[in-house]
Amino acid sequence: MVGAGQLARMTCQAAIGLGVGFRVLAASPTDSAALVCADVVIGDHTDPGALLAFGRGCDVLTFDHEHVPGERLAELEKAGAAVRPGSAALRYTQDKLAMRERLRALGVPCPRYAPVTDLAGVCARGEEWGWPLVLKAVTGGYDGRGVWVCRTQGEVAAVLANPVLVFAEEYVGFEAELAAVVARSPHGQAAAYPVVQTVQRDGVCHEVLAPAPGLPAALARDAQRMTLELAAELDVTGLLAVEMFLAGGGLLVNELAMRPHNSGHWTIEGARTSQFEQHLRAVLDLPLGDPRMSAPQVVMANVFGAGPAQVTKERGLGPAGGSGPWGLGAGPQEGGVPPRASTADIFSRYEHVMAADPGVKVHLYGKQVRPGRKIGHVTVLGSDVAGLRDRATRAASYLSTGTEDVE
Amino acid sequence: MVGAGQLARMTCQAAIGLGVGFRVLAASPTDSAALVCADVVIGDHTDPGALLAFGRGCDVLTFDHEHVPGERLAELEKAGAAVRPGSAALRYTQDKLAMRERLRALGVPCPRYAPVTDLAGVCARGEEWGWPLVLKAVTGGYDGRGVWVCRTQGEVAAVLANPVLVFAEEYVGFEAELAAVVARSPHGQAAAYPVVQTVQRDGVCHEVLAPAPGLPAALARDAQRMTLELAAELDVTGLLAVEMFLAGGGLLVNELAMRPHNSGHWTIEGARTSQFEQHLRAVLDLPLGDPRMSAPQVVMANVFGAGPAQVTKERGLGPAGGSGPWGLGAGPQEGGVPPRASTADIFSRYEHVMAADPGVKVHLYGKQVRPGRKIGHVTVLGSDVAGLRDRATRAASYLSTGTEDVE
Repeated sequence: MVGAGQLARMTCQAAIGLGVGFRVLAASPTDSAALVCADVVIGDHTDPGALLAFGRGCDVLTFDHEHVPGERLAELEKAGAAVRPGSAALRYTQDKLAMRERLRALGVPCPRYAPVTDLAGVCARGEEWGWPLVLKAVTGGYDGRGVWVCRTQGEVAAVLANPVLVFAEEYVGFEAELAAVVARSPHGQAAAYPVVQTVQRDGVCHEVLAPAPGLPAALARDAQRMTLELAAELDVTGLLAVEMFLAGGGLLVNELAMRPHNSGHWTIEGARTSQFEQHLRAVLDLPLGDPRMSAPQVVMANVFGAGPAQVTKERGLGPAGGSGPWGLGAGPQEGGVPPRASTADIFSRYEHVMAADPGVKVHLYGKQVRPGRKIGHVTVLGSDVAGLRDRATRAASYLSTGTEDVE
Repeated sequence: MVGAGQLARMTCQAAIGLGVGFRVLAASPTDSAALVCADVVIGDHTDPGALLAFGRGCDVLTFDHEHVPGERLAELEKAGAAVRPGSAALRYTQDKLAMRERLRALGVPCPRYAPVTDLAGVCARGEEWGWPLVLKAVTGGYDGRGVWVCRTQGEVAAVLANPVLVFAEEYVGFEAELAAVVARSPHGQAAAYPVVQTVQRDGVCHEVLAPAPGLPAALARDAQRMTLELAAELDVTGLLAVEMFLAGGGLLVNELAMRPHNSGHWTIEGARTSQFEQHLRAVLDLPLGDPRMSAPQVVMANVFGAGPAQVTKERGLGPAGGSGPWGLGAGPQEGGVPPRASTADIFSRYEHVMAADPGVKVHLYGKQVRPGRKIGHVTVLGSDVAGLRDRATRAASYLSTGTEDVE
């Protein structure tokens, strides 16, 4: 797997279960997956030599992110690597304008969009579609980055002043944001997870509700069918996640990703086959696993870094690693190195969250804490969506801030 | 964790989720957990220097097996290491005669037993209790090793001819074999998993049925209560697994283990908190997780090596590692090294098992295949125990032998 973020980290857990050899190409030995994976190659995913060398050592190459340049992917394929998903599919996750054009050609419902080059062009769209209006970076955006909601000409001008290629999209006043995740193998077998609702703030996913509460069955089926058809049309191998707006009683496709997706983390405990195992099975061309849910309702909440930077990365970096279970001497000590104050906080947060709610499943990614950065997630299973959301957001908030102030 | 077998391997997966640093002391880099763990120390678990050095680098020490000599454990504790479970508790998993004496003193129901020194002494017990009669090694037995069912004086004499200290036990004609797993933390918090039935052949567990089908609720509660009380009496930290006979409508304790246990593998998918996560939470003195089941019935079946030796270990051993997802070039190839015939078998077995039953969860341990050796397990969740057993044993048999001949 190229890239060693939390998606690779959780894929590593699934690979251990399957008994599948799993190697990551990490930018740094402190990357989330590099901390826990037994087979780590350090290298730059934009460097042709590093990529080719990495690709030659693997039977199948897949990705933790969409940042490997298209020409690098094509070189890998030319060299005979099994790149899954392939460069022709990945293009539509790397170039959002190309994605929009392809979806339009396929008749997939999307927000209205247009290439734009200047302020006058953008404003003409604003007059046509109404304000606010969305500008999106053609490449490189994720997690709300590269997306600007502009209410005025001045805001448009400020975005256009950046040296970033953008296009314009109508602003969709949605009823809900949904996500559909499917897996597809090179043989063409496919499996669809239940459609979920994502609850976003500032373009960043905070909660995932599986299945999407109150979504009419016909719409859920439409969303699954559309995602399965897209996976086939775009010849995706591995996972395809489609983010959608539910607007005016219909569906509009917002974004695509071809990898494990934040909207699928709930599947680790909440589905018979986790999205991470499913991705491995798909890219290895193994028969896909049962995607059904293991509880009537599942809620996942992301844990974000808050306050001043703290280190939660674990030990395991070699002799220079920390000395506690959280890497810096936290934990109940009966001997050895005394704990440092800086992670006693994290340890006591674990104690609180686990004592308050023995059913909450905590996943921490070992990432350096920076304000706003995703550093983990929690999942709860049950049947009452309001109660589950309360439990999940309390646990996530406490892990993040040390308090239960749920926004 | 001292020891790097499959129990450490599955504990490693749980540690990744919790974001807890996890280091193993492995006898060899090809040990099951050493293949997948990011932090491996190679050393001999009977060597005082190696153990002390390993213990000094860890906040908490725990174990994949019970083979660390008691005096080594005591040295570690004297040096200030947090040994969990402690040497005083572990003694009762290392010395079966001491275990029997302690249980008798606690009033825990056990089969009749007696220390024996010679043939006449054993035969006197046979006359008293009836034949057959069981001889057990006082130390070092596991998975049916160190247990001899003797039907004749000649068989007794053959066992006594070995240079192994043994004691005698009555042979229990049981209705079923049960196992109860509980976790207990240094704070004294405890949690009990549902009582399971184990189906053994030649002293080796083949299937685990969770919960034990048809077990009266009162007996299940008795088994849990007895196991919780034993954990407290023996001051166990971490997991305690108690194997029992259901005989004459009552319970008799057969064996103890203080670590993740084969009878608890079903909890990975079948319980809200897996035994591996629970063991980590317990030894780290974190609040314990919810032990409830995530389906009405769960069945686990072990996968044993069959036929001529084959290698299933994964890649990731450094430059000398194999070249396929199963370590030897298996897998769908679009380029690179062609697959070798020897593991194409294993790969096609995966394809068959996963295609035949998308709901089966496969766990392979990366172990060298030897006839009769546990190399993995499968788990299925549902409600109909007969159907689940059929699915689990078919999948396990096929992974083992390439056929569905279920014994």
